[in-house]
Amino acid sequence: MNQPNAPAPTSDADYEQVVSTAAAAAAPVAAATPADRAGWLEAVAAALADAADELVEIAQDETRLPEPRLRGELVRTTFQLGLFADVLREGSYLGVRVDHADPEWGMGPRPDLRRMQRPLGPVAVWAASNFPFAFSVAGGDTASALAAGCPVVVKAHPGHLRLSQRTAQVVTNALHQAGAPDGTFALVVGTDNGRLLVTDPRIKAGAFTGSLAGGRALFDLAAARPEPIPFFGELGSVNPVFVTPGAAAERSQDVAEGFLGSVTLGVGQFCTKPGLVFVPSGSGLVDRLAEGAAGLPGAPMLNDRIREGFATAVGELAARPEVTVLAGSAEVAEEPSLALFTTTYDQHARAREQLEVECFGPAALIVYYDDPAQLLEAAAAIEGQLTATVQGTEAEAGVVGPLLDVLADRAGRVLWNGWPTGVSVTHAMEHGGPYPATTAASTTSVGTAAVERFLRPVSYQSVPDDLLPPPLQEANPWGVPRRVDGVLQIP
Amino acid sequence: MNQPNAPAPTSDADYEQVVSTAAAAAAPVAAATPADRAGWLEAVAAALADAADELVEIAQDETRLPEPRLRGELVRTTFQLGLFADVLREGSYLGVRVDHADPEWGMGPRPDLRRMQRPLGPVAVWAASNFPFAFSVAGGDTASALAAGCPVVVKAHPGHLRLSQRTAQVVTNALHQAGAPDGTFALVVGTDNGRLLVTDPRIKAGAFTGSLAGGRALFDLAAARPEPIPFFGELGSVNPVFVTPGAAAERSQDVAEGFLGSVTLGVGQFCTKPGLVFVPSGSGLVDRLAEGAAGLPGAPMLNDRIREGFATAVGELAARPEVTVLAGSAEVAEEPSLALFTTTYDQHARAREQLEVECFGPAALIVYYDDPAQLLEAAAAIEGQLTATVQGTEAEAGVVGPLLDVLADRAGRVLWNGWPTGVSVTHAMEHGGPYPATTAASTTSVGTAAVERFLRPVSYQSVPDDLLPPPLQEANPWGVPRRVDGVLQIP
Repeated sequence: MNQPNAPAPTSDADYEQVVSTAAAAAAPVAAATPADRAGWLEAVAAALADAADELVEIAQDETRLPEPRLRGELVRTTFQLGLFADVLREGSYLGVRVDHADPEWGMGPRPDLRRMQRPLGPVAVWAASNFPFAFSVAGGDTASALAAGCPVVVKAHPGHLRLSQRTAQVVTNALHQAGAPDGTFALVVGTDNGRLLVTDPRIKAGAFTGSLAGGRALFDLAAARPEPIPFFGELGSVNPVFVTPGAAAERSQDVAEGFLGSVTLGVGQFCTKPGLVFVPSGSGLVDRLAEGAAGLPGAPMLNDRIREGFATAVGELAARPEVTVLAGSAEVAEEPSLALFTTTYDQHARAREQLEVECFGPAALIVYYDDPAQLLEAAAAIEGQLTATVQGTEAEAGVVGPLLDVLADRAGRVLWNGWPTGVSVTHAMEHGGPYPATTAASTTSVGTAAVERFLRPVSYQSVPDDLLPPPLQEANPWGVPRRVDGVLQIP
Repeated sequence: MNQPNAPAPTSDADYEQVVSTAAAAAAPVAAATPADRAGWLEAVAAALADAADELVEIAQDETRLPEPRLRGELVRTTFQLGLFADVLREGSYLGVRVDHADPEWGMGPRPDLRRMQRPLGPVAVWAASNFPFAFSVAGGDTASALAAGCPVVVKAHPGHLRLSQRTAQVVTNALHQAGAPDGTFALVVGTDNGRLLVTDPRIKAGAFTGSLAGGRALFDLAAARPEPIPFFGELGSVNPVFVTPGAAAERSQDVAEGFLGSVTLGVGQFCTKPGLVFVPSGSGLVDRLAEGAAGLPGAPMLNDRIREGFATAVGELAARPEVTVLAGSAEVAEEPSLALFTTTYDQHARAREQLEVECFGPAALIVYYDDPAQLLEAAAAIEGQLTATVQGTEAEAGVVGPLLDVLADRAGRVLWNGWPTGVSVTHAMEHGGPYPATTAASTTSVGTAAVERFLRPVSYQSVPDDLLPPPLQEANPWGVPRRVDGVLQIP
């Protein structure tokens, strides 16, 4: 925070200019063809790749993240833009349904009806601290909203303001050169401007990645507007891991190494960091975890505010009477290393609410259980999660089958013998989950389905072919997949 | 209201029994196969059809609606249940996406990821007054939530309590005989119980059809919960109609007859009733409307509370200085006939907020405009709507093209030379629209897409085939359409 040379909060006059220009851009951005918008996204990706050296250098300076991580994250970001370009060209995202007029329809004659998805209008995006590229100015929320045909106003994260400003310049220039209307994209700086955005009547949806407290406050403002808007908040998660007796017996070294790698990746600063692990009592796994943790170096966190938040959360957890330190320390160093705590199943069950709390940083709580049935009980009692992981063996089908099923009811993504960090951007990815993991469990903020958040269906009834949008015209000139009279058709 | 022999409000003990049983049913209902649930829906449809004589008789007594209308509505209701059974057997609603592990994936190796939709859990449904079958106990919200795999608790509408109770008995018995778990469906009575439902932590979504005030109050409660839930409220609409100069000149008799039929259908008690009509100044259309309205008989409204609400709304509209009576009266009779009011474009533009108000009953406001450009201005200024209609000619492409486009930005359904009442239940129907038409513009409450409201995606990462739900298994045993490695596949 308070970086030297960081941009100042956007002035009232500039805020007004930004949002009115975004509102004016809504119609032309929506009217651009999907192929046009695919070209914009690819132009942004190319411009970011061209500016990689400069951007990564600023990011290193502002976030303390190592260069290889930042370069990898930038690849993820440009790849993601390209993937949404593919989505636009394929056309399924339009959700086209054509029902021809039918005098014999079972409830009485039906008219000609044709339905497709249309963009919601200007979208506000609140950037995250921990992914200065992939969940920030040109990250997944921006990419998916632009793909949907919505102008985007990003509220910069205060943790990397210079990077935000420079990234925004690269994005704006690339969009301009690719022919996108003025106002397709803009950046604002300042907490107050973030609050203005969520209540601004010209903003039609919000997307957020950050803390439970901050996200819930914005969600409440969005819902209380005279015209409520959808607010897609990704708020956090403890990402529980359930280690079965079989896995602990057969693969304890693998499980220990995998867990230690995941919990310390990015200095534990991922929303998918596994922060709660159920381990069978008396297994050697805990010794391996303690041994492995002892040798791990510390590393700087993103900024002082995040380090202080981590120190507070860890201090509160360690102060609980149920909790014992296994490795590391409840005193968070300037460059924190891993802190592991333990408790028993019974103690945990009496204080779930206090113990299942996200510590954003390299820390986790290990819960010893005695009976595999307790895994099911713990899973059933857990709050909404982004991810939930089973480390098990197929021989334990009687345990792991029901466990996976309960966890699918609690989390957006269920993993088997893997680790939740390292979220891939694919068609089948779900990065979401029941509250408090997100404010909108039916959506995802990662993967190609993220575009659906910014769309709204409209049906056209008996409209002449030449007055219909192209994807609804009888000849299907864009060649998009459609459901015609109930039957899915791939051109 | 206060019908003799009407059921009393559900007691606290019975409420607790209903909701705890619904919560207990969530897992078994979700675990039932789509084919099983399709059978349940068809059993309910058959049982309702068998009970038609009895149900229609009670409905006539409680709602004053004529028998043919009620019989037609019951056909719509049973048809709708059958259509959702088709949706279940087809399987696209599961939204299955399979991404195989790919070491060459552009942003780095990806794991095996498989995504599908799962039910949200128990759903509360608030029944509407004006469709005692199709938007009530066994109506579209109930049918789509059951199809999704969610237990349903219906809050009965006080306007037809005996019908609600008897319908609920038919539904419950049919579900039981078809093998559905206890708690799959239940009815509660009483306004206080409705409020309890929306804040009950065991309820995971709400669906509502009714007034703006009532729906907004419930939406606010749903959003303010410790765990907010989606609330799908269909709140109302003035359903504007835009008559071009060409249509008024070429088809004034058709337009007048069509409009008079639509505005008086069901005594104007439809959420899609056209309540606002833009007509070119000086056209003969207005004379035809006045003449046609003069001959129309009155009819009883659903109940006294609705008649009183209509009388109040009409009285307020007629008292506006901008408004003149064209036909009928601002004094609403015991059996209201059509009341038509007029104003000018300029007067309307100065008091849009006061004049674009839903009068739930047989009334409409006619706005005289001078210049077709004013149609675009009026369309751009209008609030969110369920429907918007253009009565035009294809020769006026310069007017009607932009007009349709602006209206698609304001409404869930856009009609050409038709009338908005008589909502068909099809695959391509959209019954929704921006606030205040609904609280959830990205969804529909009518048509097969309504099932999507009650689902949530979950991704399974690297889960062994025999531990995956059937639609995600490699062999696709249910034969559902899937997107595999980004490519849509129809089995």
